[in-house]
Amino acid sequence: MTSSQHDSRPPVVPSPPAASATSTGSPTSTRRARLRAVLRERGLDGLLVTDLVNVRYLTGFTGSNGALLVMADDDADDGDLVPDDAGSSGPDSASGVADGDRTRFCTDGRYTTQSAAEVPDLPRLIGRPVDTALLRTTAAGVIGFEADAVSVSAHGALRRVVDDRGGDVELTATSGLVEELRAVKDPGEIDALLRACGVADQAFAELIEAGGIRPGRTEREVGLDLDQRMRVLGASDPSFETIVATGANSAIPHHRPTAAVLGAGDLVKFDFGATVDGYHSDMTRTVVLGEPADWQREIHHLVLAAQRAGREACVVGANGADIDQASRGVIIDAGYGDRFTHGLGHGVGLQVHEAPSLAAGSASIMAADMCVTVEPGVYLPGRGGVRIEDSGVVGPDGYLVLTLTARELRIL
Amino acid sequence: MTSSQHDSRPPVVPSPPAASATSTGSPTSTRRARLRAVLRERGLDGLLVTDLVNVRYLTGFTGSNGALLVMADDDADDGDLVPDDAGSSGPDSASGVADGDRTRFCTDGRYTTQSAAEVPDLPRLIGRPVDTALLRTTAAGVIGFEADAVSVSAHGALRRVVDDRGGDVELTATSGLVEELRAVKDPGEIDALLRACGVADQAFAELIEAGGIRPGRTEREVGLDLDQRMRVLGASDPSFETIVATGANSAIPHHRPTAAVLGAGDLVKFDFGATVDGYHSDMTRTVVLGEPADWQREIHHLVLAAQRAGREACVVGANGADIDQASRGVIIDAGYGDRFTHGLGHGVGLQVHEAPSLAAGSASIMAADMCVTVEPGVYLPGRGGVRIEDSGVVGPDGYLVLTLTARELRIL
Repeated sequence: MTSSQHDSRPPVVPSPPAASATSTGSPTSTRRARLRAVLRERGLDGLLVTDLVNVRYLTGFTGSNGALLVMADDDADDGDLVPDDAGSSGPDSASGVADGDRTRFCTDGRYTTQSAAEVPDLPRLIGRPVDTALLRTTAAGVIGFEADAVSVSAHGALRRVVDDRGGDVELTATSGLVEELRAVKDPGEIDALLRACGVADQAFAELIEAGGIRPGRTEREVGLDLDQRMRVLGASDPSFETIVATGANSAIPHHRPTAAVLGAGDLVKFDFGATVDGYHSDMTRTVVLGEPADWQREIHHLVLAAQRAGREACVVGANGADIDQASRGVIIDAGYGDRFTHGLGHGVGLQVHEAPSLAAGSASIMAADMCVTVEPGVYLPGRGGVRIEDSGVVGPDGYLVLTLTARELRIL
Repeated sequence: MTSSQHDSRPPVVPSPPAASATSTGSPTSTRRARLRAVLRERGLDGLLVTDLVNVRYLTGFTGSNGALLVMADDDADDGDLVPDDAGSSGPDSASGVADGDRTRFCTDGRYTTQSAAEVPDLPRLIGRPVDTALLRTTAAGVIGFEADAVSVSAHGALRRVVDDRGGDVELTATSGLVEELRAVKDPGEIDALLRACGVADQAFAELIEAGGIRPGRTEREVGLDLDQRMRVLGASDPSFETIVATGANSAIPHHRPTAAVLGAGDLVKFDFGATVDGYHSDMTRTVVLGEPADWQREIHHLVLAAQRAGREACVVGANGADIDQASRGVIIDAGYGDRFTHGLGHGVGLQVHEAPSLAAGSASIMAADMCVTVEPGVYLPGRGGVRIEDSGVVGPDGYLVLTLTARELRIL
């Protein structure tokens, strides 16, 4: 894989004429408009977005190096607000803002062609490092940066740019501004999640249909088989390292597939997902190889009841801690409270773990179109464990499940 | 995939009796000893290591959340220097250092069992966040942190710990201390790289043998096929997203596999690698489907000559810029200088791109047992391109190639 020569000059790539002004309200421009409203509320003149997942969310760019400077007053960057004749005399004319007040994207020379296709509606700079290249070109004012994503070294370089400019820019630390927006999905995102869940559902069904889950195979063989089926069905990758955990291993919440051999009578826990168009599905099912023992039936039944309670509690307005408790209470009441050792769920989207959180101490309030997992488990060390997990959408009529594989104990 | 409940209390997990004192000089303890020497040179009392790759390098820990505090004067953390009877009266007795002067590791509760197996020779804390948990327990002094890996937010939290302690710790930014050590590989690392390269070589040979590279298949199908072969042969993953680029796509240095169909007469460029035990191989070969045209033969011949020149220049004491120039000069002399648009190579190891760099402006000096790629290319936009890349070790007798697939133009 090639490395790149560094290039500190940021040549400006001309954006397509009027593209930034005639956007017809693409999902990314709508997201940027929502972010601008947040910036104005916070008294920020701009936000330097360097977290790559946030950059993708706001621009569509999928490369490995890019940054975005969103300017709070750049109403020209909103297809919904700009008439079709805007931009006829250049990209700055629509709202009268100066160039430094314009939202713009920066990447390096490897991505000149790709970024033109993926980010057609924003002015682009080509240069390295992308963050300082953008900061050099901004108008004076208060510019936020993403304190969770910017390293101390990178922050030092940004401060040197501010000094070079004579201090007309004030850098302000921010946290979670874009992540909060990302928690609520737009229709295109829900569609991508649905397709990602569909790939995982279908791959799992095919794995079972083909007899892929059987005594004698190793966890690793079964995991590779499942992963490959997801890829063939269109996943760019699994959402994370697929968990296949057999027998006593199923009692380990995060178990990596090993050479352990599936045996008759084992519980086998699968936690896996597919990445489709950058969106991650996440599902857990636990099957049993042959007629289950009473204790296996019992804990599967219990986890299923707890999972249902969690889904039912997952309504608009509920908070993450209460939803966790609604599900956890079922397990506590059955005397297994200390065997459920992790949180109930988490947001899924461009990352497999993102806001909001369903766990003790969570202050997240459910809003319509949040996408979250619900995944209680009971783990009996040395014996085995059960987890059941869905990904779904918080909707007006409750939690809409996107992962459609049957949850009942499957006897193989 | 489960999320974790946060837990701010850091309970100490007792380390196995005397384990940290009776280590027999494991690779990781030897690496920590080299790092301690660096810390003493720099006047640091300790280094808080939070870059996960560096943590893995220094401890063997492979989980997703862990940190390490290496104390400069903790000679008890060196199997080579500690007699077998050390530790008989507890882990602190060997060198007389106080507990706060001891090197220690921290992870969260998900990894209690895994870290006991992977990091048996260090005292462990279990807590979150791992960085502040470690900083709270250190002796007073000057403690470095990794400024390239610590976010501004995380740095703020560390500074609050310093304040809570009354300021007896001074935090100092460092950069690249562990990365510099990592550039020179120890025998176990070279062995892992050799196995990773072997998996890639064998998978590519099998792909060709099976007729997998043929007109009518898509880039994506061929890439999936190659990736799956590497996994079956023992790779935990490809080293990066495998590049399969056919026809005009081969002129794009970083091309992602698409639905483009391999056609008769196409150059097909493969850039791929296998990850084995955390180590990444990296190799590029370009084949042709059917009898090559003159221009295809010509640029392949040229790139092969340039690649040989690069390998031959890759000797102990050479610097990265000169090696790049030795190879690039061959291409410039042939009139294609502007068609070789990236650096010549990079270090490979726990990351697929790491120190040193072989490129214009590089100040890296080659030392024995550095592992680097050599990968010149010539790209003719709209027509096709050739890149040839090996991974290898800088040795006393020159560059020892680890990727053994023949480099000559393969006609399929």
